[in-house]
Formats: sequence, structure tokens, C-alpha cells
Amino acid sequence: MSILAELRAIVGDGHVVGDPDVRASYEHDITGRFAGSALAVVRPGSVDEVAAVVGACARLNQRLVVRGGGTGLVGGAVPLAADELVLSLERLTDVADSSDGGDLIAQAGATLEQLHRAATARGAMFALDFAARGAATVGGMLATNAAGALALRYGPMRAQLAGIEVVLASGERVERMSGLKDTAGYDWPRLLVGSEGTLGVITRARLKLRPPPGPRAVALVGLDAIEDGVRLVRDLQRPAAGAVEAIDVFDARSMELVCMRRRLTPPVAAHPWYVVVQVAADDPTGVLAQALGDRDVAVAEDTARREALWEYRDAINEAIGAAGVPHKFDVSVALAQIASLLSAVRGELSSGAELITFGHLGDGNLHLNVLGLEPEGGRIDALILERVAAHGGSISAEHGIGVAKREFLHLTRSSQDIRVMRALKAALDPDDLLGRGRVLP
Amino acid sequence: MSILAELRAIVGDGHVVGDPDVRASYEHDITGRFAGSALAVVRPGSVDEVAAVVGACARLNQRLVVRGGGTGLVGGAVPLAADELVLSLERLTDVADSSDGGDLIAQAGATLEQLHRAATARGAMFALDFAARGAATVGGMLATNAAGALALRYGPMRAQLAGIEVVLASGERVERMSGLKDTAGYDWPRLLVGSEGTLGVITRARLKLRPPPGPRAVALVGLDAIEDGVRLVRDLQRPAAGAVEAIDVFDARSMELVCMRRRLTPPVAAHPWYVVVQVAADDPTGVLAQALGDRDVAVAEDTARREALWEYRDAINEAIGAAGVPHKFDVSVALAQIASLLSAVRGELSSGAELITFGHLGDGNLHLNVLGLEPEGGRIDALILERVAAHGGSISAEHGIGVAKREFLHLTRSSQDIRVMRALKAALDPDDLLGRGRVLP
Repeated sequence: MSILAELRAIVGDGHVVGDPDVRASYEHDITGRFAGSALAVVRPGSVDEVAAVVGACARLNQRLVVRGGGTGLVGGAVPLAADELVLSLERLTDVADSSDGGDLIAQAGATLEQLHRAATARGAMFALDFAARGAATVGGMLATNAAGALALRYGPMRAQLAGIEVVLASGERVERMSGLKDTAGYDWPRLLVGSEGTLGVITRARLKLRPPPGPRAVALVGLDAIEDGVRLVRDLQRPAAGAVEAIDVFDARSMELVCMRRRLTPPVAAHPWYVVVQVAADDPTGVLAQALGDRDVAVAEDTARREALWEYRDAINEAIGAAGVPHKFDVSVALAQIASLLSAVRGELSSGAELITFGHLGDGNLHLNVLGLEPEGGRIDALILERVAAHGGSISAEHGIGVAKREFLHLTRSSQDIRVMRALKAALDPDDLLGRGRVLP
Repeated sequence: MSILAELRAIVGDGHVVGDPDVRASYEHDITGRFAGSALAVVRPGSVDEVAAVVGACARLNQRLVVRGGGTGLVGGAVPLAADELVLSLERLTDVADSSDGGDLIAQAGATLEQLHRAATARGAMFALDFAARGAATVGGMLATNAAGALALRYGPMRAQLAGIEVVLASGERVERMSGLKDTAGYDWPRLLVGSEGTLGVITRARLKLRPPPGPRAVALVGLDAIEDGVRLVRDLQRPAAGAVEAIDVFDARSMELVCMRRRLTPPVAAHPWYVVVQVAADDPTGVLAQALGDRDVAVAEDTARREALWEYRDAINEAIGAAGVPHKFDVSVALAQIASLLSAVRGELSSGAELITFGHLGDGNLHLNVLGLEPEGGRIDALILERVAAHGGSISAEHGIGVAKREFLHLTRSSQDIRVMRALKAALDPDDLLGRGRVLP
């Protein structure tokens, strides 16, 4: 039997999609920079079907790429070759309670928004958030160790994980879902977090809920220099260490593009830089007032007005995408290096290129977007990432490596380190069927 | 050149110890149940020397076992064979600041007590603690993913980790010490956490400091039944979710042995069970009063009196050790299963055996100590751990597998899961030189 016939027998005819028009929505990511063409898209309806699909692929030596919500930014879930199968987990959307009620049990295709709704319904908080919440899925967020603004206080997706179920490249299923304190043997299923679909298929997760924090307030602050933003991060860390949930930053061009795209008016006077600070405390505006001093600031306390301030930050990716196809760099450096890095990056850009900067300032995590380059970008990707490495930074803070950064992994990982990665890939996926060509150079 | 001559050339004659009298202190752990005899003990004085020692062992096919503070409870760091070398990291004791001042950079041989002193000197907290703090080391705590009472709120050692440096079985050195948000490639060095020295040698770690919590109070509570302890955990989780740092438990026999050993008087009237609760909040005694109701309780606020209440809990291991050589079980189950498990375990014991129970109740983590068994214990280890598995529990909550539990790993890990563990071991240590015979059955 051919692979497609086998897959149809497992998931039903309607869920093995060969039609190019339907397939098309699975063949790119939201950057618009990465696109490909797949053999077909297969959409299993249960974890058993995922295991059977992957098992059939293992038997027939069929390569595949796992896809979540399609909100990736590094081409990691885009088919690379016409003989590659897209495994979409979009039908696995269940979110339930753990038996003790303390955690959520979520299937891989459940969205971030579903997690927030489930947490709120239980009087709790799921402590991770970012703008693509309506589409990004549990599987994709775990596979990339997604982070976002709240990671400053609550950590990335890895820190929310209490249990995981995976389908191995062989099609075998392993689960570690008890949520108990447990040191019995190697904690290898957690290694799949951040492995971008290349070591196994994450099918289910047990995710921590937290008690809701105290009352929240958000401030959007205008700043004259990025150095003042760094100073603000330090000022906030002292009196308000436990209270600060997020410190994000964006530049004047981001504000301009968002205001055009969403027909908004800036909430403070024009400045070269803006910082969004969120705190949760008994007296959140008091905490903000103390740290922000006499800076130009708009403050919001109720949910609607807080979301309105976050919109200036959340809509930036969309607004940049509407302005062109950017080269995206997702880097992190120590706070003390931020100003120097930005100056070095500007120095590498030719006159036709435009740099738009935003990101999670408190984590030293900047999203550098460059418009006005050729699609391939020539040497500019290498030049910028070399500058990041020279500043002691990471070439991928939270978006992953995918295909976009694989040639640059050596900039911050030693040859011994990459050799171990290859050995682990060979141990878990000896035939290189899962996400071949992603992550590793 | 012989292996010992090579090692002497690397670390100096005085640090390759063959003398049986000196060696003896490296050839057991603190249970007294596990003991062996080693070829020699080698004590490198730097990470470079560790790499050279392991590299020489790799070349000469010399097996070795890594040893931290010797406070293990599962025989994991005890030499198993006369041709096994003990690699002691006791000379690597540096603790320094990260360049940004936010974390500690600690060598593998630094003790938990050193971390506490360093954190306090910086006005911060290192959020992990247990009774063996004066001897347990950073390397050992990471290798076993040690936990202790504060893990209820702050997580185990893995949750304190911001960066790690390892020496591979080949003698190659890899570091991931930047502490930055970083998703560049697989996060495999973290896999060494909990691998008990079998996948590589942890030489250095970057460890998170936290702001000190609010004022603390400790309550020691007498309870008539373990079910009331479970109820207390639930009561504490509601009004005081963010405030509770630890909820430990111990039985009447633990109290009796500690009072004899340390010449203490119980701080409350005699009860079958005692719980120690620690909270940190603006009004910690208020939080305790609300949750504890009219139970029989002793409360302490200042440091000395808090430590005096914790002594009843901290001295239990020592007091049991003075009474005999226990079979130790370190298990976890869901809170709802605790009473049923204890009753099942009692049912398995013959009349000559005595069960002494203590542990981290809030995490469902019980340390079951059985006195009065033969050293080998016959079938009792299997019977008890089978009961734990039947209750959906873990056979190793925080002590690890070592040699004591390796034959029981299959009780809670599937054959596919264990096959992956073996594949990872083969990928990272192809000649099985590191900790051969530990962890894996």
C-alpha cells in the first residue's frame, strides 16, 4: 500500500489533504519569507492516530514535518521538499482538568487562548502570553519553548510544563503525565521542549496553573534613549522585584506602523523609544509611580484599558508584515550590551535597509526586523548574528532555529555541543524522518 | 603509562588516593547500606583537570563514578567494583557572582551551605534547602535533581538552574553559562540534571538568586491522622497560595527518635503525626492562624526559633541512622492516595519490621524508612514499590535511582521509555564509563 493509502486508512480520506489549494495554507509561516510544497497534509484526530501515522511513516521511510498553529517565524514548520508530509495536530484541541484539579491537561492542537480561557474559568492564571494567542498551539509552543512578555517573571513554556506525552519517531508513545515530583530515570521527554519537532511529536501536555496575581497595572512610557530603558529595568528590579510581570520595548517606527495599521493615536508624546511595564501588586500604580518617576507615561488599571495599552506592542509583528517581508532576528544579550549591540547592528545596514526594533527588554531579548533587503538577504544575516555573538548574546532567544538560523548555530554553540546534538538526534530519530534539515546545520 | 600514573601527572601525586584508610571515606554513602571498594580516588583541582582526567579515562577505557558530598541515599556515588575510579569534585568549591550580579556561578564541589551564605551576603535567597546542607554539593544536587522542603514553592534544583558546564564522557567540555533566554538548538545539557552522573560530569552551574520573601513564620502542628494533614495542605493552598513555602510531615516515631538523639522535648503534645508549615507573607502568623484553626500548634517567627522547630524535622535521617540501617523509600503519590498507600505499605511489613514515615507532604513526597529488615531486604523492596506504582506514584521522588532502585525502574517507566534512556546513554557515553550500572536496569 502507498503511504497516502495507509494514511487514509488511519485518519480517513478527508484528513489526508492533497488538494494544492487546501494544502497552500499549510505551506508557509506567518513571516511570508518561508514557503514550500508538501506531498500532502495529514490531520489525525486522536493521539492513537498520531502514533499510527508516525509509525506508518517510520515503516515506509516517509519524512514529515510537524505543524502547530503556523505562527512560527523561522520556517521550522514549513515543508522543505515535495516528498515531505505535513503532520498537522490541529484536530487535537481538548483541554481538561488534571485529576487533582491543579493543572490543565491539553492536547497539542489546543491554542494559547484556550489555555487562558480554561485558566480563567478555574479562577487561575496560565502564565504565558503573546500576540499570536489565538492561533499558536500547545505543541508548537512547547516544541519552540515559546516565551513572550510574561516570561520575565514566570519563565518560558518549559517552566509551565508539569508533564508531557510524546510519540517517538518510531511511532511508539511515551507518557510522563503524573505531575508528581519524580526523579526516576532520565528526564528526556523534557528534551523535546525546544527541539522544534525534530526529536519526536509532542501530543499532550500537563500545564501548571498559578493563582492569579494581585491587581494589575500597565504603564506605557516614552523614553529618549534605549539606555534609559535599561536603567528603568534596573530601577524596577529593586523596589518591585516580585511585582514586575513584563517589561517590553519598541521603537518610534514600531509605534508609527502600528498606529497606521490599527488607526490608533499614541498614548504619550512622540519619543524614540517606548517601554510597556506590567506589574501585579496590592498597589500596582504606586509601584509604577515610584519606579517611573517623572517620565512621560500612560497608566491603565482596568482590563480593557490595559489591553488597549498592550495593543501598541502586540500589533507590531502584524504592522511590520503589512509593510514588507522582514528579515527577523530574535536575539538576547545582557542588559549592559543592548545599546552597543543596537549601534553595531545599525552600522551593518546599508542605506536601503530599515531597522525596526521591539522586544522583551527585561530579558535582554530584542526582535530586530530589517525591511528593504533581498529575500535571501545576502551576507546581512551573518553580519548581524556575528555581531550578536560578539556581544555574548544568543542568536535565538525564543523563536527557535528552524531553517532560518541553522547555518548560524555554530556562532554560539561549540563543535562539541553540536556534535552532541547530532548524536541525540540520531538516538531519537535514527532515520532522520522528523523535521529533517531543521535546527541542525 | 598506567592510568594511575597518568592521573598523577594531571592532578599531582597527593590527589590520586590509593591508601585504603583514606579511600574508605569515599566508599560508602550516608545510608550505611551501600559500600564498595575503588581502584583509587582522584581529586582534580580545576575544571581543566576534570576534563583531562575524564579524557585519560576515555582513552584507557577506565570506568569511573562521580562523587559529590557523599550524602546520597541510593548508592549512586559508591564504587561498585575494584576497578572503578572515584572522581571526587570536592576541591572545586568556588562560588562567585555572574557578571550582571543576578546569579551565582558555583563550581560543582561548592556546598549548599556555601550557596546560602553567598545569597545572604548579597541580600538574596537561594531557594532550595535540606538537612544535609553542610555537605551536599552543587554537582551532586544537580546530578540528582535534589529538592527538599522549599521545592513545594520554588521547585527542585532544576528550577534553580540558569546555566551549566559539563565535561562529556570523551573529556570534552561544553558550557552554556550565559544565563540568557536562549533557544538555539537542543537544551541537552539540562538533561544531565537528574542523570546521576551517568551522562557526563557537571563541573559548574549558574544558579538563580531570588529576592528574599516577606517575613517568615513556622508552625509545628500535632495531628491525629494523616488525612488531617492532607486536609491541611488543601486548606493552606486556598487563602495562602503564594505564601506557603513548605509543608513537611513526620510521624510519632520520628519525633521520639529525634528527641532521644538530640535531647529535645516535643514542642506540642504527643500526636500520631506532626506537620511543619513555613509561610512567608506580610503577616505570616495571621496566615498560619487562619489555616491552622484550633489545632495543637507551636509557632515561631524569629530565625533561631524557626530553626529550632525545623530541627525536629531535619534531624530525622540522622536519628533513624543511629537506630539502625534502614531500607529507604522515597516515593510520591497524589495527595488523595497518601492514606491508602500508607495503609497498603503497613500491610506488606512483617511483624519484625518497623515503618518510620516523614517527608514533604505538600508535594505528596513520603520518605518511608523500614528498620528491622535483612540488608538485602528480600522481596520487601519490590512489594512496597509495587504498591507505590499501583497507587500511580513515583518510586523516586527526589533521591534518584542509583543502584537501590534500578531493578524497579520498569514499575513506572515503560519499556519504550527505558529504551530511549539506553539510547541516550549510548549517545553520550558510548563506552559506558560513567557510573556504569547506576540508574538503568
